[in-house]
Amino acid sequence: MNANQFRSSIYIVALCGIYLSAAMFVPALFDLYYGQPDWQIFVLSGVMVGGLSLASAMATRGAMPVFNKRLGFLLVNMLWALFSVVGAIPFYLSTLKLSFAQSLFESISAITTTGSTVLVGLDSMPPGILMWRSLLHWLGGIGIVALGLFVLPFLRVGGMSFFKMESSDTNDKPFAKLASFTRAFMAVYVGITVLCTIAYDWAGMGHFDALNHAMATVATGGFSTHDASFGYFNSIPLMWAGTVFMTLSSLPFSILILFAVRRRLDSLRDPQVGFFLGYLTLFSLMAGVYHHVRNGVDLPVALTHSFFNVSSILSTTGFASEDYTLWGPFVVALALFATFMGGCSGSTAGGIKAYRFVIIFNVVRSGLKKLIYPNAIYPVRYGQATVDADVQRGVFLFVSLYIFLWAVGSLGMALLGYDFATSVSAVITCLSNVGPGIGHIIGPAGNFSTISEPALYLLSLMMLLGRLEVLTVMVLLLPIFWRN
Amino acid sequence: MNANQFRSSIYIVALCGIYLSAAMFVPALFDLYYGQPDWQIFVLSGVMVGGLSLASAMATRGAMPVFNKRLGFLLVNMLWALFSVVGAIPFYLSTLKLSFAQSLFESISAITTTGSTVLVGLDSMPPGILMWRSLLHWLGGIGIVALGLFVLPFLRVGGMSFFKMESSDTNDKPFAKLASFTRAFMAVYVGITVLCTIAYDWAGMGHFDALNHAMATVATGGFSTHDASFGYFNSIPLMWAGTVFMTLSSLPFSILILFAVRRRLDSLRDPQVGFFLGYLTLFSLMAGVYHHVRNGVDLPVALTHSFFNVSSILSTTGFASEDYTLWGPFVVALALFATFMGGCSGSTAGGIKAYRFVIIFNVVRSGLKKLIYPNAIYPVRYGQATVDADVQRGVFLFVSLYIFLWAVGSLGMALLGYDFATSVSAVITCLSNVGPGIGHIIGPAGNFSTISEPALYLLSLMMLLGRLEVLTVMVLLLPIFWRN
Repeated sequence: MNANQFRSSIYIVALCGIYLSAAMFVPALFDLYYGQPDWQIFVLSGVMVGGLSLASAMATRGAMPVFNKRLGFLLVNMLWALFSVVGAIPFYLSTLKLSFAQSLFESISAITTTGSTVLVGLDSMPPGILMWRSLLHWLGGIGIVALGLFVLPFLRVGGMSFFKMESSDTNDKPFAKLASFTRAFMAVYVGITVLCTIAYDWAGMGHFDALNHAMATVATGGFSTHDASFGYFNSIPLMWAGTVFMTLSSLPFSILILFAVRRRLDSLRDPQVGFFLGYLTLFSLMAGVYHHVRNGVDLPVALTHSFFNVSSILSTTGFASEDYTLWGPFVVALALFATFMGGCSGSTAGGIKAYRFVIIFNVVRSGLKKLIYPNAIYPVRYGQATVDADVQRGVFLFVSLYIFLWAVGSLGMALLGYDFATSVSAVITCLSNVGPGIGHIIGPAGNFSTISEPALYLLSLMMLLGRLEVLTVMVLLLPIFWRN
Repeated sequence: MNANQFRSSIYIVALCGIYLSAAMFVPALFDLYYGQPDWQIFVLSGVMVGGLSLASAMATRGAMPVFNKRLGFLLVNMLWALFSVVGAIPFYLSTLKLSFAQSLFESISAITTTGSTVLVGLDSMPPGILMWRSLLHWLGGIGIVALGLFVLPFLRVGGMSFFKMESSDTNDKPFAKLASFTRAFMAVYVGITVLCTIAYDWAGMGHFDALNHAMATVATGGFSTHDASFGYFNSIPLMWAGTVFMTLSSLPFSILILFAVRRRLDSLRDPQVGFFLGYLTLFSLMAGVYHHVRNGVDLPVALTHSFFNVSSILSTTGFASEDYTLWGPFVVALALFATFMGGCSGSTAGGIKAYRFVIIFNVVRSGLKKLIYPNAIYPVRYGQATVDADVQRGVFLFVSLYIFLWAVGSLGMALLGYDFATSVSAVITCLSNVGPGIGHIIGPAGNFSTISEPALYLLSLMMLLGRLEVLTVMVLLLPIFWRN
């Protein structure tokens, strides 16, 4: 790491800061339209951040250094740190009387597309603040897909180099050029957002609610404009629309793009897609039938709720149609374990992710066979491809650190006085960027408004660690990272 | 798998059955000495099992087949299945009115050295039953050390082949011969049991209690002769004696033997020993200081209890000096995570075990460095040795299946109606062969007497899976295992 690298990192981050400051005028326009005086906060924040960013960018202009991995890691961390702090400014300046810890938590929860909230009284909140939360979700979603598609495979984080190989596949020649791929991605991302808005609007939400929930859906974020989340609308068609779009948004975007361009279903052959849809269906059916049998709810209604809430957890969105933890202990345990799992790579979903489970499953299968015939060769496969030892190790590394962070974080929450269920579920819901936990405080009927400041800082860190696939942040702790 | 292999498996198992039937006369003698009519149950069981075993052995005599891995796996499973059922007979026939599920659970809990109990009213129970529980612990302890030292490394289970390499180390020439090693092991095992009995006796237990607790200690089992476990004695010297002997029993026996023969401390250089003692000390200090600060307990008293209970969990013994889950949420979470961890390999302790954590730690460290310098070579070390990819994969395989079984088992318990804390802690305490869980049912102040029959069967399976290092049982599920 040298001075030139630091300087140009700040330059790039400052450039992004200018774009983010421009985004602040969107909620300002909404507040103006609805006649809310809060527009001034967004204009003030925008001008302030924009000015500072412009000044920093001008002060750090110069020749770009050779791009290497360390610069990549540094940049990713700095960008998310900047967006966290800048995103928090309007919350802190607003009339909501949030502490800095709360503002930062809300901002990080937004940009990491987690969707845990410290706010209560959403139903009567100024539209600007609601739009700012949705916008941060939406931008965070773009950020994470870009990270997953372009940056992490290059940095070989957590077995992601596997997808680097895939994207250089000859089949993908139409997207060999980054720019055309980016355009295609933005078209699909905006397209899904628009379709989802229309679907929600048509199924009974108001225009503003439909837009906000659509932005939160495509980003698999989960912020709602109502304290009761999706439960506010209590509508079967809306729940199915939510289920479809949440699930769609946790599929790999590269596949959605291929599908949009070629309109052929065989672009869905990525093994993680089948695996993800498989456990999503299995868990939903189990929860729905259990709800039906145990609580006597009509099976179609029970399944509507179970598909909605299970997709919500597995896609790491975090909307809730009702307090599913009241369905019984099986659903509580299922919700907790589902919170670890997540969606597909290259999507806006978080968690351990389906492709890692596919690889783990195949490592276990070949390993068990090898116990019986130690000299036979059982290659670990991912679809048609062979998963090499490096990628296997990458997955191992990621999962080990993920579980380690969960354990240490949970101990931290318990040390701060939180009960067992709250401690273990708060940390994993933040690490996996899901949203709700279990227990009476942060369960699907609760929120993070009563969580203490040290706990909010701890959980904010967990959200960032999870969103950046853990390793991207952990490398910064190595002394060799900082050596010149 | 062919008929000859099956026949000779049954032959070997039947031979072991004869030995086990002989062991039943030990509790009979205790009952006779204390004037309890229950001696008849043990004599009856002994004659019955002995006769059946003898008949089976005679019916299956013949030429031994070539020993291969599949035969090894089959034998290990059959042996533990036999011991489980045979051990349950005296419980089932006793005057305690236990169901078959309860008897089987108690027996499996004994031979797997778990120490979870379905019995209440231990304080007034006939000595024969108490001795039978302790004896099953003690024999199970021998079985598991033999498995860990001789069988699993040969079967390359869960990264254990690593220790095969070590035992063929030239330093170990004195023990090249199995027979002399076995004699040395038995001497050390009996020696620790005798020393522990003397220590407990001297520190204030009665002779019978001291012997039973010593047998449960060296096997890291945890059955007590009192419902209140170690809390019954409420003695600081006894707790420290327990702490020392539980810790000692979770060190690798190969090292204890080397130490006993050479009397040099450098035989303790195995990296897992330092790692294990490190986290044991760290967790004990954290729990003790927390107890002192939060509940105002005198620091020396708090530390005595914390060292005792933490060693009890980490050594997977499961004695309790009091209900430590009342100390506060931090200790509840710590107890749960400690239940996953366990002691050293080649000891009577269960859990994931320290050597796997050493390997995971080094895999993570080298993996993180490799993220920054992808072309550099950072071999994964275990002490002076290099851990090859096969062993790394073995550890990966084991830990993945361990966590998978925990999740599936917990869902099963929740489906049977148990609350979240009880479900997740019951399964891991059984899988790790610890004993108590958390929550008001099976916490350190509770027991398994109210657990339903289906749940007892599920937990019995978990105890066996954990004790046989998971993979040893899982290979039986592969179709290729059964192919001729």
